[in-house]
Order: sequence, then structure tokens, then C-alpha cells
Amino acid sequence: MAQNVYDQEQFFNEYCKLPRSEKGLEGAEEWPTLRGLLGGLHDDRILDLGCGFGWFCRWARENGARQVRGIDISQNMLTRARAATASDSAITYEVGDLDTVSLPNVPSYELVYSSLAFHYLSDLSSLFEKIYECLVPNGRFVFSVEHPIFTAPLTPSWDRDDNADGPKSWMLNSYAEEGPRVRDWLAKGVRKQHRTIDTYVSLLLKTGFVITALKEWMPTREYIEAHPEWVGERSRPLFLLLAAQVPATKIGREN
Amino acid sequence: MAQNVYDQEQFFNEYCKLPRSEKGLEGAEEWPTLRGLLGGLHDDRILDLGCGFGWFCRWARENGARQVRGIDISQNMLTRARAATASDSAITYEVGDLDTVSLPNVPSYELVYSSLAFHYLSDLSSLFEKIYECLVPNGRFVFSVEHPIFTAPLTPSWDRDDNADGPKSWMLNSYAEEGPRVRDWLAKGVRKQHRTIDTYVSLLLKTGFVITALKEWMPTREYIEAHPEWVGERSRPLFLLLAAQVPATKIGREN
Repeated sequence: MAQNVYDQEQFFNEYCKLPRSEKGLEGAEEWPTLRGLLGGLHDDRILDLGCGFGWFCRWARENGARQVRGIDISQNMLTRARAATASDSAITYEVGDLDTVSLPNVPSYELVYSSLAFHYLSDLSSLFEKIYECLVPNGRFVFSVEHPIFTAPLTPSWDRDDNADGPKSWMLNSYAEEGPRVRDWLAKGVRKQHRTIDTYVSLLLKTGFVITALKEWMPTREYIEAHPEWVGERSRPLFLLLAAQVPATKIGREN
Repeated sequence: MAQNVYDQEQFFNEYCKLPRSEKGLEGAEEWPTLRGLLGGLHDDRILDLGCGFGWFCRWARENGARQVRGIDISQNMLTRARAATASDSAITYEVGDLDTVSLPNVPSYELVYSSLAFHYLSDLSSLFEKIYECLVPNGRFVFSVEHPIFTAPLTPSWDRDDNADGPKSWMLNSYAEEGPRVRDWLAKGVRKQHRTIDTYVSLLLKTGFVITALKEWMPTREYIEAHPEWVGERSRPLFLLLAAQVPATKIGREN
């Protein structure tokens, strides 16, 4: 079962203060890039895995989606999500653990979306298979995770030499050692899972998906001019964004 | 024009001493992974870009290839390559600069292969287009480069704190800053080009290729037991291996 930090009081209170919680999608730096991978949503049926406060579900409905279903492990977050869209019966929310969730085993969605949720899960292989099964032929699967370079180190840290010229360095180690990483982020003991880019891409291909985009989000130089505090984020990518598609014939699984 | 370090005496002399120069493919740690991406070579016509001493060209002929054409910028290396296969007219070698090389603009090869050459080139976009044009429908394109995590830092170095517990850390910076990197490797002033994984994958997709594999080569734990001096190489990947395919219909370029 996935760890549910979002229903721990301290974590939740701190999470609510993040720009992406207060402002929604516009408060998420990687959103413009992620949005660029989605394509048009006209009449789409959409599944959002790890929907949180439902910002994406609402945006999708405003941008042409026919139906949106959001699943999240956090009761706290879904309570807020439901309150914001009570009048729209085409958006539904339910509590679910993505490590064990059941999804329709017939083609039911044009798009499966997930933002920054999969790096909490211990078994992506079976989840990707369920996602493949519930997508229609040509259906799209678009997701973001914390970038493997960001999740790899046993202890995240920057170069300690404050006197050095040149850019700050991210202390990268243990990239090959996939598995749990415990982080103090908003609260102590948040458990994440490190996977390599190789593993994310290979899992998609093995499941039968066609890769349509791979993006490593980092701030642009223009962004740094307006937000100099982000300069370190050009030293290493923070988010990995992947887009994939079910083949038109929905065959082609390698095994 | 690409820099030709291989015809500089000091570099060439040092390069000749590397295990991959003396032993060939079996002296290259990533070879078993790369070989796994090739598929069967039965009756293939193969183009090897940056063929060096011709180890792969000879292996390909021994493993069923019909014809192999090797191109390299180094006269030194081709002289040796030619001497080793003078009796096999199905292997041909020619001097060429991959930044400006001409390739057939009709389908002529079943496989284009390149090992550790592209990170020397400043314009991959037009080269990938030429490769696409010269491949048959369903033709394969398999290559390795130095991994972007390895090429990114302005000055490559490991964590300087020798007293720290835990694994060595690779000092990663400037991942977002694509472009030249000057390294002292075998000789001073070797010029390489840093690109992100995003850029390699996006270039393949934009050219019209279908991605069939992405591998980040690192030594296995078993390898480390036999070669403990390689343990740092599990901190960050050293090689990126990509396999792609031309669609059966040879349409589908995004632009």
C-alpha cells in the first residue's frame, strides 16, 4: 500500500501553502510543458491518477473533456476537490490507492493523466498494464514524475563548497540503485521510489505503448532572469514528463 | 567540421591502449547491452558511423550481414581497419566527417549503427534526417553516446570529501546548458557536445523515428564484485544507448 502523507496533518498543512496548491496549474512551473503534451481534449473521457485538489480535472472540463474521473489516496484533498465541482456531474472523484487500484479492463478513456504521483508507487509495471487496458486505441497516456536525477541520491544535497566559482553542483549518486528513498519534504519520512529513465521508458515499451514525447523540465534562461532563486535548477532537471500512445490496433505488446 | 583528435599522435597512441581498442567489442563494457538492441543481422546492409578500427564491421559480417560500410574521420584508424579485412570486399571503409557527410537519399540500409561518436558532433538534426532517408522501411537505427549526465558538468569531478560515508557523488551541473564541453581525456582539449536526453529523444521523434529502446548503461552489482574499481559507475550512468526504427510506411514525420 502506498504511503498517504497527504492525510498527515503537518504535511497537508504545508502542502496547502505551495504555489501549486494555492494557484493550481498556473502555480506549477512544469505545467506549460505538460499541457503541450496533452493535445486537444475535445470530447475526451479522462482518468486523472493522483488528482489531488482536482485542478487538472476542472481545467480538463473547461477545455472540452466530456468526462473526468479523479482518483487520489487523500481524503483531505478529495474533500476539497468535490466541494469545488459539486455542480458538475461529469467530474467524479474517488479514494483509491494507485498501488492496488482497479481500472476498467475495457477501453474506457481517451486520456490517462498523472502529475507527480508515480514516484510514490512501488509497482508501476502492473499499473501501466491496467492503464493500457483501460485506454482506447490511439488513447494517450501523459504523466510527470520527479526526475530520476532528482530522486537518485541517498541524501539530496548541493555542492558544499560555497566559495567555488561556477554553478552549484547536485551531488548525484546511487542512480543505479532503484528503490525507496526517504526524504524530509514538508514532513519527515516521506517515502519515494527512485527509478531510472531507462526503467520508465522500458516499462512503457514493454507494456505496448508508443513513446510520443520525453521532456526533462528545467527553467528557461528567461525564467531565471525573472526568478534568480531558480538558477540551481538549470544544473539538473527536476521533472521528467513522458507521453505515450496506445497503437491504433492495440496489439504489439512485447510480452 | 568535427574535431579529429584520433589523428593527433598523443591521443591516438593513448587510445590504442584502451581495452576497447586492444580487445575490440569484448573490451567495451556496454557492448553486451548494445548488441541486445541490434536484433538479428541476417542479410542486412549496414552503415557504421564512426567505425574506428572496424571492430563492429567485422563482427557484423561474421554475424550474417550482407554488406557493411564504415565511415570515420580518422585516417589512422581506417588504415588499420582496412588492413584487417582486405580480403572481404563486402566491407568498405571511407574517410568522412559526420558533420557534413553525404549519405544515399534512397533506402539503402537495414541498419545504421554508431558507437560513441555522436557526442563529438555539433549538428545531429541534419545527420538524423540523412540517416532516416537512407534506411529502408522498418530499418533500425542503434547508437550509443556518452550519457548526458556524464557530459553535462563544465568540469567533470567527483565529490571531494574523501571522508564522507556512503557512495561517491558525481558533481552534476549545467545539465540545461547544451553545447561544447572541453575535456582532457587522453589528450588536452578534446571537444565534445553536451545534449540532454530530452534532445536526443525529441530529435529522433521529430525526424520520424519510432523509439524501440532506451538504455542507461551502468555496471551490474555482479560486475562490481569482479571489478571493484568500477563502483563509482553505479552513481551515475556512463553511456546512453538508443534504438529506433523507421515506420513500415516511412511516413509520420512531425514536420
